[in-house]
This record gives sequence, C-alpha cells and structure tokens, in this order.
Amino acid sequence: MRKMAVIGLGHVGREVGYTIVTKGIADDLTLFDKSDKIAKAEQLDLQDAQGQLTTHTNVAIQDYAQLQDTDVIIFSAGDITALYDHAGDRLAELRVTSKIVEEVGPKIKASGFNGIIIDITNPCDVITTYLQDLTGLPKKQVFGTGTSLDTLRMKRAVGEKLNVELTNVAGFNLGEHGETQFTAWSTVTVGGKPISVLAKERNLDVNQLSEDARLGGWYIFNGKRYTSYGIATAAVTLAEAVFSDARVIRPVSNWNEELGICIGQPAIVGREGIVATYPITLPADEQALFQKSADTIKHNYSTLPSKS
Amino acid sequence: MRKMAVIGLGHVGREVGYTIVTKGIADDLTLFDKSDKIAKAEQLDLQDAQGQLTTHTNVAIQDYAQLQDTDVIIFSAGDITALYDHAGDRLAELRVTSKIVEEVGPKIKASGFNGIIIDITNPCDVITTYLQDLTGLPKKQVFGTGTSLDTLRMKRAVGEKLNVELTNVAGFNLGEHGETQFTAWSTVTVGGKPISVLAKERNLDVNQLSEDARLGGWYIFNGKRYTSYGIATAAVTLAEAVFSDARVIRPVSNWNEELGICIGQPAIVGREGIVATYPITLPADEQALFQKSADTIKHNYSTLPSKS
Amino acid sequence: MRKMAVIGLGHVGREVGYTIVTKGIADDLTLFDKSDKIAKAEQLDLQDAQGQLTTHTNVAIQDYAQLQDTDVIIFSAGDITALYDHAGDRLAELRVTSKIVEEVGPKIKASGFNGIIIDITNPCDVITTYLQDLTGLPKKQVFGTGTSLDTLRMKRAVGEKLNVELTNVAGFNLGEHGETQFTAWSTVTVGGKPISVLAKERNLDVNQLSEDARLGGWYIFNGKRYTSYGIATAAVTLAEAVFSDARVIRPVSNWNEELGICIGQPAIVGREGIVATYPITLPADEQALFQKSADTIKHNYSTLPSKS
Amino acid sequence: MRKMAVIGLGHVGREVGYTIVTKGIADDLTLFDKSDKIAKAEQLDLQDAQGQLTTHTNVAIQDYAQLQDTDVIIFSAGDITALYDHAGDRLAELRVTSKIVEEVGPKIKASGFNGIIIDITNPCDVITTYLQDLTGLPKKQVFGTGTSLDTLRMKRAVGEKLNVELTNVAGFNLGEHGETQFTAWSTVTVGGKPISVLAKERNLDVNQLSEDARLGGWYIFNGKRYTSYGIATAAVTLAEAVFSDARVIRPVSNWNEELGICIGQPAIVGREGIVATYPITLPADEQALFQKSADTIKHNYSTLPSKS
Repeated sequence: MRKMAVIGLGHVGREVGYTIVTKGIADDLTLFDKSDKIAKAEQLDLQDAQGQLTTHTNVAIQDYAQLQDTDVIIFSAGDITALYDHAGDRLAELRVTSKIVEEVGPKIKASGFNGIIIDITNPCDVITTYLQDLTGLPKKQVFGTGTSLDTLRMKRAVGEKLNVELTNVAGFNLGEHGETQFTAWSTVTVGGKPISVLAKERNLDVNQLSEDARLGGWYIFNGKRYTSYGIATAAVTLAEAVFSDARVIRPVSNWNEELGICIGQPAIVGREGIVATYPITLPADEQALFQKSADTIKHNYSTLPSKS
Repeated sequence: MRKMAVIGLGHVGREVGYTIVTKGIADDLTLFDKSDKIAKAEQLDLQDAQGQLTTHTNVAIQDYAQLQDTDVIIFSAGDITALYDHAGDRLAELRVTSKIVEEVGPKIKASGFNGIIIDITNPCDVITTYLQDLTGLPKKQVFGTGTSLDTLRMKRAVGEKLNVELTNVAGFNLGEHGETQFTAWSTVTVGGKPISVLAKERNLDVNQLSEDARLGGWYIFNGKRYTSYGIATAAVTLAEAVFSDARVIRPVSNWNEELGICIGQPAIVGREGIVATYPITLPADEQALFQKSADTIKHNYSTLPSKS
Repeated sequence: MRKMAVIGLGHVGREVGYTIVTKGIADDLTLFDKSDKIAKAEQLDLQDAQGQLTTHTNVAIQDYAQLQDTDVIIFSAGDITALYDHAGDRLAELRVTSKIVEEVGPKIKASGFNGIIIDITNPCDVITTYLQDLTGLPKKQVFGTGTSLDTLRMKRAVGEKLNVELTNVAGFNLGEHGETQFTAWSTVTVGGKPISVLAKERNLDVNQLSEDARLGGWYIFNGKRYTSYGIATAAVTLAEAVFSDARVIRPVSNWNEELGICIGQPAIVGREGIVATYPITLPADEQALFQKSADTIKHNYSTLPSKS
Repeated sequence: MRKMAVIGLGHVGREVGYTIVTKGIADDLTLFDKSDKIAKAEQLDLQDAQGQLTTHTNVAIQDYAQLQDTDVIIFSAGDITALYDHAGDRLAELRVTSKIVEEVGPKIKASGFNGIIIDITNPCDVITTYLQDLTGLPKKQVFGTGTSLDTLRMKRAVGEKLNVELTNVAGFNLGEHGETQFTAWSTVTVGGKPISVLAKERNLDVNQLSEDARLGGWYIFNGKRYTSYGIATAAVTLAEAVFSDARVIRPVSNWNEELGICIGQPAIVGREGIVATYPITLPADEQALFQKSADTIKHNYSTLPSKS
C-alpha cells in the first residue's frame, strides 16, 4: 500500500495534498502543519472531494507515529512571506526555514521513519542537505525537487518559441534552485534535434530563452506571490517514481560527494530514492556555471548557525 | 473539442483551473480575473505543470472573444473576505458579489456566448438566478453547484459514522446553499438500505449527523478561511457531465418555475445543461424545510437593488 | 508500494492487466499464464505502452516467488471455450476450471502469499469457495466478483430505460453469478427514489428490466464470445478498494457462514478483504430467490470430485 | 465536445475503444465493424464498464451519419489472420486490407466527414496514402501511427539496457512501418546524452539494441498473435493531441511531397492533423535507410490494383 505524508500545508503543500488525493496516488496520507486548525480543514476538504472520485485516500493529520511505515514524505514546510520583502533572497528565506527544519527534522528521525524524503522547502539545496544531516537517513533517501521547476520553465520557454508542446523538449537546468541556476543547453534537444542545430535553423538566441524562462517565474511570483502547480506536480511525479521504482532521470537536488552538498544534477530516481547519479560531461562554460552555483550553495550552507 | 472558461481566480477558481488542467478535462481554457497579473501568473503556472502531464490544455487569459464558442463557463468570481467578519452572512456576501455579477454578466452576454454557465459564486441560488437574468440565456443553460457541497458533507458525515466510504451513501441535501439547507433524509440510502432502517439498526441520530456535516464545513472555513477541493471537484464534475451529456442526477441550483427562483433540487444534468428536473415527493416535514429555504432565497433575491 | 498479480491471461485477465498498467494502479505486477509465450507477449506489450504514460508499472511474469509479498491477486484462469457449446452451463465450465484451480491453488499456498485473492474465474461462487479451501487463507481474504457484473447490467438497463446515467442507480443483484442471480429490487433506488415509486410514476415493469439486463449479457457473449471490460473494470476497482482500504459496499461473492458457501451478497471491501458483511433484510420473495440461488451453488459445489 | 469513431473492432480497435472509454477521452464514440453482433457486444460491454467510472462516453454503433461532425476517426479495420501464414509479409496483408479500405473509404467520404483520420491498419504507410486518395481529404488530415510503435520498442530496448524508464529515451524510428523501418540513432538521447556518447561510456552496440527492439515485437506477435496495448495507446495519444492541439512531435506516417507517399517521419501533430513536418537532417547512412524504406512503400503502393 502506498503511504505518504506532506509536512507543511502552505500554498505548495496544500496543492501537493490535493494532487495526491484527486489523482488517487496514495492509499494513506498524513498531513502536518504548525496549525492544527489548518490541518483539520485540509483533511475535511480533501475528504469531501472524495465523494466525487472513484479513488480513495485515507487522510490522517498531525500524527508523527504514522511516519514509521510511511514510504514518502513531501517536505514543504516554509514561510513564503519571508520572501515578500526580499524576492529571490534565498538567505532571508534560509533564516526562516532552517529553524523550521531544525524543529521538524528531529521529529522525523524520532518517528523511526525510514523512507524517502522529497524536499520542496527553499533554499532547496541547502535545506535538502540539512535534512540529510538532521534525519541521519542515508543520503540517497533524501533529495529535493532541485532544478525540476527551472527545467519546466526552460521547456515552456523553448516550446513556446518553437510553437510545439513543451514535452517535446528534453534536457536540464542544473545547479542551485535559485538565482545561479542555468540551462545546460548542451543537453537540450527538441524532437530529436540539438538546440544548437535549431538555433542556427531558426535563428534562436538561447540567452533570450533563458531570460524568457526566468521572466516566467517572475511573473508567477509577482502575480500569485507564490508558485504552486508546477512545483506540486513535479514533487508528486517524483513520489510516483519512488513508489513504482520508475528509474526516471531528473535534475533533482541530490548529494554530490565531491562538492559536499546537495545540488541540482541529473540522477536516476527510483524506489531507493536516488538510485544513482547520472553524470553528464558538460562543456567548459556550463561546467563553470555549475561550479559557481555549487559555490553559492556551499556558502549559504555555511551560514547555518549550526555549521559555523 | 472541449472549450471552457473560469471567471474569477480566487481560491475556488484557481483550484477549478488546476483540476481541469491536471485531469486533462478541457482542450481550451480561458481564465479571467479582475487582476491581469493574477491571470497571467495562473496561466504560466498551469503551463509549467503541463511539462509533466500527458494531456495538454491551451490556456488563454482575459479574452472575452473566446467565450463565443466556449462550451462551459465556471463562474467563480467573488470575494471571500466579505465573509471574514460575517461568517455565514449570505446577505453581506450578496452585496459584494451582486456587483461583480452586474459587471461581468453583460460582458458574457455581449460575447455571444451560448453555452452552459455553472455558478459557484455565493449566495449561489440568488447569483445563479441573477446570472439567468443578466445573460438572457435559456434558464436550463445557467445553473449553480447548489447543495452539491452540502450533500458531499452529509455523505462524509454518514460514511464516517458507519465507517464506510462516503460514495456508498446516496441521497441529497436540498434547498438554499446556505444556512437553511437541509438533508432530505427520505432520499438517503447506504448500500441499498434506507437511512431510516439503519437509524434503527444502529441507533443513529440523524439530527446529529446533520450537525456533524455542518460542523465539517465550519471547521474548513475556520481553518482555511475558504473551501476549495470539495466545491472545485463538484463543479468540474458537473462540467464533465455537460460535455459528455452524462445525464447525472444532482442537487444543483436550478430554476424552479413555481417558486420563481433557482434552488437546490435534483435535476438531470447533460449537454443542454438542465435536461430536466427530477422531482421527488418529500414528506411533509422535509417539504416544509424546502419551502422555508425557498422563502429565504426569494427574500435575498428581492434585496438586489435592481429588483426593488 | 502496491503489488499485484494476475493469474490467467485469457480475455479477462489480459484486460485486467492492461487496466492496471494504463491507469497506473499497481507499482509491481506479476502475470501468470499456462503459456510462457503469452505471458512474455503480454509483458512486452504492456511495457511498450508505458512509453506513452506518466505512470510506471514493473511487469514480471511466471514467478511464483513474487507472490510472497504480493498484496492482491486477481484470479482469472479459465477456459471460456468450455462454454462455447454449452452457453450458461456453469457445470460444464466447472469441470474445466476446477482442475485449473486444483493446480494453481496449492502453488499460491506454497508461495507464502498472505494477501487478498479476488476471483473472476467461473462459476465464480464455487471457485471462490474452492480457492478458500485450497489456499487455506482466512475466508475474508478470498472473495469473488460475484454479482458485481450482474449489478452493472441491471444498472445499465434501468439507466437506459429512464434515460439517466447508470451511475445514478443504486442497489444490487444478488445470489449466484449465474442463471439464478436476481435483482433485489427492494434495494434499488435512482437518484434517491425507490424503484417501486418510479415503477408507478413511469409505469415500469421491473421484470422487463431484469430481462433487458439479462439480454445485454447475452448479446455480449453472442457477439464477442466473452465479456471483458465490465468485469475487468469491476475486478480492478475492487483491488483498488483493497489497497486504499476504501470500505466500499459491493455485491461480491463472499463467505456465508450459515450457507457454508460463497455467494453474491453485499459486503464491505477494504484492506483486509471482506471487512464485514453488510446484511440486508430482503422481502420474502427476494429471500426465496436468494435461497434458491444458494441451493444451486451448494449443489454445484458438491459436484466437485474432492467434495463427493 | 469530443467526438470520435473507431472503424474496425479487431484486437486493436477494441483496445482503442476501451482505452477511450476507460480514460474518458471522448464524449461521443461511434464503433463500426463488419459484424453487427460484434459492434453491439462491444457497445454493451463498454456501457457496463461505465457503471464504475466517473467519466461518461456515449457509445453508438454502425451509424455513418455520425461521422459528419466527428472530430477524429481511428481507422483499425483489418484482418490480422492474413499474417498468420506470412508473418511480416506486408504484401499479403495489403491484398486483404486494401479491399477493406476500398469499401469503407468512400463511405467516410459520403458521410461528409471533415475531421482527422488516424490510420492503424497495415501496411500503415500504403493504407494511409490510399485513405488520402479515397477520402479526398486534405493530406494533413489523414495520417497513420507509422513508426510510433517501432519507436516505443526502441525506447524499451534502450531503457532496459540502461536500466532506466523508457520515457527517458528521446528520438525516433523512421521509415516504413514494416521490415525496413530503422532507428535514427542520430536523434536518440537518454537523459540529455546522445546515444553515441552512451555507447562509448557503456560499450553499447546499437545494432544489438535494434535487434532487441525487433525481437520484442516478434515475441509479442508470436505469443499473442497480434499487438494491442502499445499501438492502441499510441493511437489514442495521437487523437488526444488532435483534440487539444497539443503540437507534439511524433514519427507518424504522413505525406512526403517529394516521395509522393506517406512515410514515418517526424511531424507536429495538432488540431489540423499534421500541423507541419519537422524535418531532421539525417547522416548519410540513416538517409540511405530512409530512402530504401521509402522505395519499399512506393513499390507496395504501386501494387494496388487501382494504381497499376
């Protein structure tokens, strides 16, 4: 039976819960929030919705004992308002979310949980690394959505420019889920054609495409003040890959032994979590961007009080 | 091809849009909101999510010209904050939402729209009636979610009490989608057994069940400050019934010729909207509750400035 | 993780396998058939299909060791050709299928399987009873689709007559999944109205409706020489109810202590299999039909060589 | 509203119909078969299944008048037994299926149909070309599944070898859907890496992978005597792309002006059918294979009695 938990019922966590229930992905789902009232409200609203579905999900709340045999936790605790005066300031966000993780991480550990944690909470790479520390779980069992969302935005921008469905676009954004993320254009193909070939054929400017992708994210934050569907869908899809041992290659935030932190880099996701990394040799310019992005994560990680 | 629109991107409208896209229900979807920024943000977030789906939905925004050949509009414009100081005060809500409807209704009419409108905006029965007036559409083409959500909550309460899935419960809540709604217990069966038989067998108190259902709604509002999954799922399911001409019997808010208003009463929903009412003879006590509920709707309707 | 098996890849078993994969219901699926070639072909065809799905299912074949931690087995081994010269002759079918069960049952037992078996193989009630004997599993863990399909056919006939979607019809067919099955009209409601009330309002002849339902089945057998979608969908839906502990009330073939056989009677289906029976007091005429149906099953069961 | 038809209810056509209904893809579906009994049986079986679904599909049969406003026809008329003594002999198959097309094509034309035809019937490229002739529809409105299935099989073989989900594999098989089809390895990437890079890293032999893919197809035919899930899923996915104007790039059989026949080559599929071809410059060796494959189709097409 598929047993999941969502920790943190902000805008993203709520959408994750709804996606799980409306698609019938989990059999048992436990919701956690700092507010008992919100957890109860979400539970009841999700139960009401099930009167119109053919699938059933048992929804429990606020019960850490459930974690012992839970397969997958989506970790989405955070406080988006930390960004409202500091858009894009991952350090401001880190000051808030690191405290939450310090509170919740030990509870996860104490529950006896031995499944997979998928982190959405930002700054994703630092928090994912920190969750590995705090839970003591094998590193392969704790990973983050990383540059999954950035990759989706790149795909949208490319698909829009070429007027084809974004699912035709293959390739990755890599690095920090933050300002220093970048598209590894050397990995991008559309319908079997490298972007370099398309760029010549159609006179594309990949820097402009990167900018279009970035702007897309900005418009969403500027309009809604948060992002939900893209990231919730990405996280739930990763959870499905864990359940079914699908072995999908995704740019998730996962442990890089050499760098000593988690970073958005391609890995094979399956039942064990990170089944293996999927190393790609990048050209020098992209490798430099990756290194710069890694340095940012390392620096941010070093600012954690417990690390200094 | 299935063409839909969602008017009003508050908590419910957003969830309606996400449900449509994530389940691949519509081919073309136009989103409308008073804020261009929010409409744009929702469009982009929904497009990002599609990078992980096998279905595709073309998402347009703020374009009334699209309504001309749109099949189904979900009308979810409103302002939930109108309730924050007056929980359950449908008249306070009406003062706000009637103005919105007066602004948007004529635009729908001017677009040449000739499809089906499903109203979620509250007070549902009054607003649905008002939308019939303002759009001039045949009455069968404009209906509201009515007591669909109240019915789901009754089913949850009954299912929970008997420890069976709520989908086993058949029957309806009827009347105003508001304080005077009631469960028509004479219509309720569970797994083929009338609730009256079950009440004896299991010593159930149906009044307590009504209270449990009501409390469920209160907990949701108290926790989230709005309701979204149950109502969004109900509305989208009704839209699907329109597309596929499913002819499902649902307690939607639909025109009652005798009463001269829309009210939650069973009707057959299909491609024409309300294909037919599905009249049920209620016992005297339930009929009295229905009449009282109708009186409330009529009174509220009469408070509309344009009606007095 | 959800782990299933399908034993017997005839027309129904194949459709069950496809439904499981195309809807992403199981994470791991093991297929069994007397023909290795067919099992291999089904495995590969199901794997090819997954190139177009967002869900993943690991498909193994012919490996009884997989059963040890399998949650749900759909048992669909049989030989429909046994009916080709004897349509409706359940005894002719029993002579063939009882041998198959005698061969496979002990292998299931030897595997250490301790999950739920859902039997489709006919004659369903006798074979389900026999599978309980041969596997030695607790009786609640072995049940059959029973009169689920008969119930669907009744619903179709009633829905068609009233020109409403068949899902509006609640109620059950009961007894033997065979010639003596019958509609318990006392349990049937449509949109909250008892069929007895509708019969008067619309001048319906329930006997004609029973005949329409029966004829529907006959047309299917006469045209395709087997039935697949209705029964496969019913079986998979029951498996989903087991995974999610949905506690749905269904007319499955389940152990009747008093009668000493399995028979189609309402029960609550959840994670343990049959969570509880859901006894309904039938009027005398329906009770007589039930008794007659039970007698047929008992007689057929007694013809098993091992029982005589 | 989405309106579809399936013409020909053999193994593939049946599975197409079931997929459409069980996934709720079409609102209206008309089934056609040379046998009225089979058409009726499929209709009833699909209706029974809907008692367990939340989606509804109106299923009609044998009514060419329905085609006038039908959006998409899946053409799957054929006779797989033509291959039983001549596995892989597309000419033997053509002798049988060309007669069927000559009978049905004019009926489609006479109905006033002006939607999209997706051909599955083999030999796919010749039959698709012939359907363009016989219906007189614009060439972009008639295309075939082409090398979609061959591509899926290549993806399965590659994914299996690398132990990753086949959806990670991008790229195409091209040419005739028949013996001369080939993998355009220059288009194949896995998780953003060209197969040429992977071949070096992992010491892969792409010829062996081609052979593995081919063998997979052979095992399916040898076991089941037909192929159904992969091809049905591919066809239904293409129909979805038409409804939603998804603009997906797929190796469908579509008109090649230069060659004067339909052939499996990448094209963008959307609401108009073939929105545009998506030309890829192949290396010389792959181009030679494509030309050889084209010659085979041209030769086979020339054997049609009406063409000689």
